[in-house]
Amino acid sequence: MSAEIRIVLVNTSHPGNIGGVARAMKNMKFSELHLVEPKKFPHIEADNRASGATDILEHAVVHETLEQAIADCHLVVGTSARGRHIPWPVVDPRELSSIVSSAGDKKIAVVFGREDRGLTNEELHLCHHHVHIPSNPDFSSLNLAAAVQVITYELRMAGLYREQAEEHKPQWGTDWDIDLAESADLERLFAHLEETLIDIDFLDPENPRQLMARLRRLYLRSVPDKVEVNILRGILTAMQKQLKD
Amino acid sequence: MSAEIRIVLVNTSHPGNIGGVARAMKNMKFSELHLVEPKKFPHIEADNRASGATDILEHAVVHETLEQAIADCHLVVGTSARGRHIPWPVVDPRELSSIVSSAGDKKIAVVFGREDRGLTNEELHLCHHHVHIPSNPDFSSLNLAAAVQVITYELRMAGLYREQAEEHKPQWGTDWDIDLAESADLERLFAHLEETLIDIDFLDPENPRQLMARLRRLYLRSVPDKVEVNILRGILTAMQKQLKD
Repeated sequence: MSAEIRIVLVNTSHPGNIGGVARAMKNMKFSELHLVEPKKFPHIEADNRASGATDILEHAVVHETLEQAIADCHLVVGTSARGRHIPWPVVDPRELSSIVSSAGDKKIAVVFGREDRGLTNEELHLCHHHVHIPSNPDFSSLNLAAAVQVITYELRMAGLYREQAEEHKPQWGTDWDIDLAESADLERLFAHLEETLIDIDFLDPENPRQLMARLRRLYLRSVPDKVEVNILRGILTAMQKQLKD
Repeated sequence: MSAEIRIVLVNTSHPGNIGGVARAMKNMKFSELHLVEPKKFPHIEADNRASGATDILEHAVVHETLEQAIADCHLVVGTSARGRHIPWPVVDPRELSSIVSSAGDKKIAVVFGREDRGLTNEELHLCHHHVHIPSNPDFSSLNLAAAVQVITYELRMAGLYREQAEEHKPQWGTDWDIDLAESADLERLFAHLEETLIDIDFLDPENPRQLMARLRRLYLRSVPDKVEVNILRGILTAMQKQLKD
């Protein structure tokens, strides 16, 4: 049970940007694109920028008004720069994702405005929330595809984190190929290491200082797997063999 | 006290993408761009796509090799698709941001590969961690500027949240007593290690298999400090001395 999310673009001037948005959406596994009065659509520049996401353009729904595009949605969120004349509940993209995560199987629209002027106040007032991407105040002009990329990335992350919630995710990622070393393996490694360091006169048993502690810390920090421990012990054995020969 | 973050682009084919990256960076208030062997740079298409972020292009540093571009960095993170032949510690952009947040005033490089082929295995093996943007498995081809947009957005969010929270969750601890090793220190360590392993007949240069890759991964994962690197090199030197005596 998860939300159905549509991306709504209002009055886009450049068809290339619509293509860029389609690509950004598909990268993050979203597919529902709604267009309100696009200046030029369909258009070859949209197809070119979409590069592989033209299926999203083919299924895009074109509307005459924003009201129509969002009519059946339960939650409408408009993208906005800060400092509108009447304050609205403003969330950042992460807060938006958490709202969407907890929305269950609702229909949700995220609405993006014109390249140059964004959404009008009237359009923003159709929205339940506004979302603001906290970009550099001195250079906040994200292009349309970049803004959609950031928002859809956050929505996808929220979905993935929710899926993983029950599942233990090891430090190195789930696809590590070797079993981790057990503590006893590591203790044998450290004993072998200490013995070898004495053999090569690197460690003075009369004055060991913090050498072994530092080495333990270094190796333990990386949480070695069994093959790695075997390699290290193989190196120590090879060294000891050289000393005997 | 916060990390100094550089974006490194390796062998970029299209100058327009370099401009798009500059714009994405400036949107999220980053400015340090390093380029390794760009095909065409400087270039008018880079300036056009940067639209307002040409200052970043003007200050971009061009290098001949990735090693040079990261030599003074304490933490190097390479962007990677999943499924490399030898698994490396993989984080998502949010986990990366949390690592960076806790790093204090370190120098950090985030490295992006070629448009078509990403980073080579050799380049990925120079990195402490890999970062993977969890895009749609069926359509994962984020363009370069979009990938930089997502990563820099996460890094900026982490910075903003940190400012709000005034609280750190340090990985190494803010009170780590020793400076972290720089990439160049680590490369000298690995060269010394390889040499010694050949000396003790553990590594066969005719058939090296994945030995050095596995050892690099083990040590890089723990992000060693300078004293730890000195200890390891001291051990190698002691071994070599024993062989000569």
